[in-house]
Amino acid sequence: MRMVDIIHKKREGGTLTQEELDWLAAGAGDGSIPDYQLSALLMAIFFQGMSREETVGLTLSMARSGDMADLSPIPGVKVDKHSTGGVGDKTSLICGPMAAACGVKIAKMSGRGLGHTGGTVDKLESIPGLSMNIPRERFFQIVRETGIAIVGQSGSLCPADKKLYALRDVTAAVDSMPLIAASIMSKKLASGADAILLDVKTGSGALLKSPEEAQTLARLMVDTGNGAGRRTAALITDMDAPLGRCIGNALEVREAVEVLSGRGEERLTALCEELAAGMVRLAGLAENQQQALDMARESVHSGAALAALKGMVCAQGGDAACLEDTSKLAVSPVCVEAAIPESGYISGLNAELCGRAAMELGAGRERKEDSIDYGAGIVLLKTRGEPVRQGEPFARLYAQTEAQCRRAQEQLLAALDITKERPPERPLILARIGLD
Amino acid sequence: MRMVDIIHKKREGGTLTQEELDWLAAGAGDGSIPDYQLSALLMAIFFQGMSREETVGLTLSMARSGDMADLSPIPGVKVDKHSTGGVGDKTSLICGPMAAACGVKIAKMSGRGLGHTGGTVDKLESIPGLSMNIPRERFFQIVRETGIAIVGQSGSLCPADKKLYALRDVTAAVDSMPLIAASIMSKKLASGADAILLDVKTGSGALLKSPEEAQTLARLMVDTGNGAGRRTAALITDMDAPLGRCIGNALEVREAVEVLSGRGEERLTALCEELAAGMVRLAGLAENQQQALDMARESVHSGAALAALKGMVCAQGGDAACLEDTSKLAVSPVCVEAAIPESGYISGLNAELCGRAAMELGAGRERKEDSIDYGAGIVLLKTRGEPVRQGEPFARLYAQTEAQCRRAQEQLLAALDITKERPPERPLILARIGLD
Repeated sequence: MRMVDIIHKKREGGTLTQEELDWLAAGAGDGSIPDYQLSALLMAIFFQGMSREETVGLTLSMARSGDMADLSPIPGVKVDKHSTGGVGDKTSLICGPMAAACGVKIAKMSGRGLGHTGGTVDKLESIPGLSMNIPRERFFQIVRETGIAIVGQSGSLCPADKKLYALRDVTAAVDSMPLIAASIMSKKLASGADAILLDVKTGSGALLKSPEEAQTLARLMVDTGNGAGRRTAALITDMDAPLGRCIGNALEVREAVEVLSGRGEERLTALCEELAAGMVRLAGLAENQQQALDMARESVHSGAALAALKGMVCAQGGDAACLEDTSKLAVSPVCVEAAIPESGYISGLNAELCGRAAMELGAGRERKEDSIDYGAGIVLLKTRGEPVRQGEPFARLYAQTEAQCRRAQEQLLAALDITKERPPERPLILARIGLD
Repeated sequence: MRMVDIIHKKREGGTLTQEELDWLAAGAGDGSIPDYQLSALLMAIFFQGMSREETVGLTLSMARSGDMADLSPIPGVKVDKHSTGGVGDKTSLICGPMAAACGVKIAKMSGRGLGHTGGTVDKLESIPGLSMNIPRERFFQIVRETGIAIVGQSGSLCPADKKLYALRDVTAAVDSMPLIAASIMSKKLASGADAILLDVKTGSGALLKSPEEAQTLARLMVDTGNGAGRRTAALITDMDAPLGRCIGNALEVREAVEVLSGRGEERLTALCEELAAGMVRLAGLAENQQQALDMARESVHSGAALAALKGMVCAQGGDAACLEDTSKLAVSPVCVEAAIPESGYISGLNAELCGRAAMELGAGRERKEDSIDYGAGIVLLKTRGEPVRQGEPFARLYAQTEAQCRRAQEQLLAALDITKERPPERPLILARIGLD
């Protein structure tokens, strides 16, 4: 097989065979196909697209380019959950323990974040002592005992995706539906879960700004997962304003504990209940949506969900006392309070700009090598839809220096839209796919 | 400037600015832009195309990425000629001396061939002693004295083109009109001639199989040359059957001498007269086409054209006795004669397949590193349009081994189409652009 022929075939709108896709993913993964040929192919795929069958094929090939996790030593239905990413999105830390408390098995491998704020790995690592680097047998044991464990992705998971993702990033080939779907789903397949729940975000803080694009991607990923033999469903959810009140790693752990204690912000709580219910249903543990939602809520009410999180943190070597008393979590030394500039209603709070403000504070990383300030971030005292008066506190910003806070404050205020009229309610769940 | 932004802009159908094109060509030439980004951009250009203005801009940028030859020390109008390539195309060795004999100044830089048969450099190097590596001052002196010199391209000519051409070759991005035009024309601009005559081939042995594509490319290159301030014209000519009777380096030198001695094959002679006339007109040395053609024919009749070739060969250190007696040129030791398989008319002689047969014999190179057997090749005793009888000699094949000859014979016979009826005449010159 010659790469130049494969590029030519795709360039002319042809459909790559499974044999070609396998050869391609293996060569991307082991470095035998040069980057300049891979990037030419990625651009050709951007223009010519891929059929559903081809997307499933590419996803499977990429999953097989490295180690495929075998979770069979863990009894029960293993369910994975993936968010396409948003600002203040700490849902994995909440819906995971909720679903675990309902009997779902969650053996999750997470990645580090790049961009606005950290990923799930970074958030968890803000808990002192907690390790994401858990040997396989111990990982399985924790899931068997507490229902949930979240570990870092191993370097040998989907090397083809690692290569292609890095190339897409520097060659303007990120926003291709089949490539996004194959990238996300290949990692999910390789991670070994029986079922997968996708939280596809749309709005100003999401990769996909329009609900239509989000729906297309969600449908493609659900088809890809099901086509690869994993039960897969998706929610399309709003990511126009930040999710919840906190943005930043330790701050988000604090908020997760609040939700699991029944004291969470309404919209964030509703989304986590919905996600947990989806996981419960994918595991076949509820008859219908209402029953699944009731189970999820009861897991919080009974304290079982918070106990699951504490159990996992303890088992992974973390200081569970930080969850009993969240004031023990890291907080950056400088705090600046931003004020509401004019009276009215918050009609918009641009999530992307809020994310950039959090980056400025030190809560995210621009490059892989950058380090994160776990205690940095934003606590929103007011958010979208709320009535506000000029001069009242809007948000608290935490960082190492005043200069960071000042720059971030400017960006945060630029994210804010205030109108005289109350804005219309914005639906949280825009669609459910595969959960009818 | 960031390459990823430039790729994104082109991907979305934007027009690159001169500043962006300059930055791009400089970065391609000096290696500061990684190959994977260049190849992604090339593929985006393949899909989105380039405006005429953009193509002119890219051509100029690429020309300026290395040394720009200054031919001003040579008095008179310097005219360059370029063929898009064909099988048996030795026209530069013929029309160049013809035009030089008419007073045109030809200071030509040629490349080595890759593919079917060698390039002009390889053909000339089949003359014992001849050097293509001539210092600049001596190069100019030879042109001043004999009207013509042909030297090898220096390594510092168009480094951006060198890089982009190599990438296009391995990423299925060769057949993009603006990229072909920019590649050819950037080298012509950097070579320094005042005027440029293009011979754009079409047919089975050409890159562009259809006359329409050839016309599009020719028009684009003529506009690009004129847009860059060089008087540029083009002929669209037939390359469906091999040009002339000989394919192979020393064999083609022999045929060139035959044409310059007034004993050449009719079609090849007509094309060379046409090309020489075009060069004479671009140099402003004739009032009209008829006068220019008369001058070209007279240069052969008077012996001045052959004298120009001999003068150049001598000046470049070659053994001019080989041109007096062409039997002194290299001939490979094994000769096999192929016979006509059935009686009728030769209605087709696929140039590409003939070229591959010549490669098999050792007359071409597949990779840059391959060496060429100067004495190898094919002498066609019968060609397209001629009546033939079964069993009569069709061609002589020259190589180092019988095995090569046998394999090549098979390919050569596969190139042959014989019909009972006389095939229609195929026009030689399909169009003239900029020579009205």
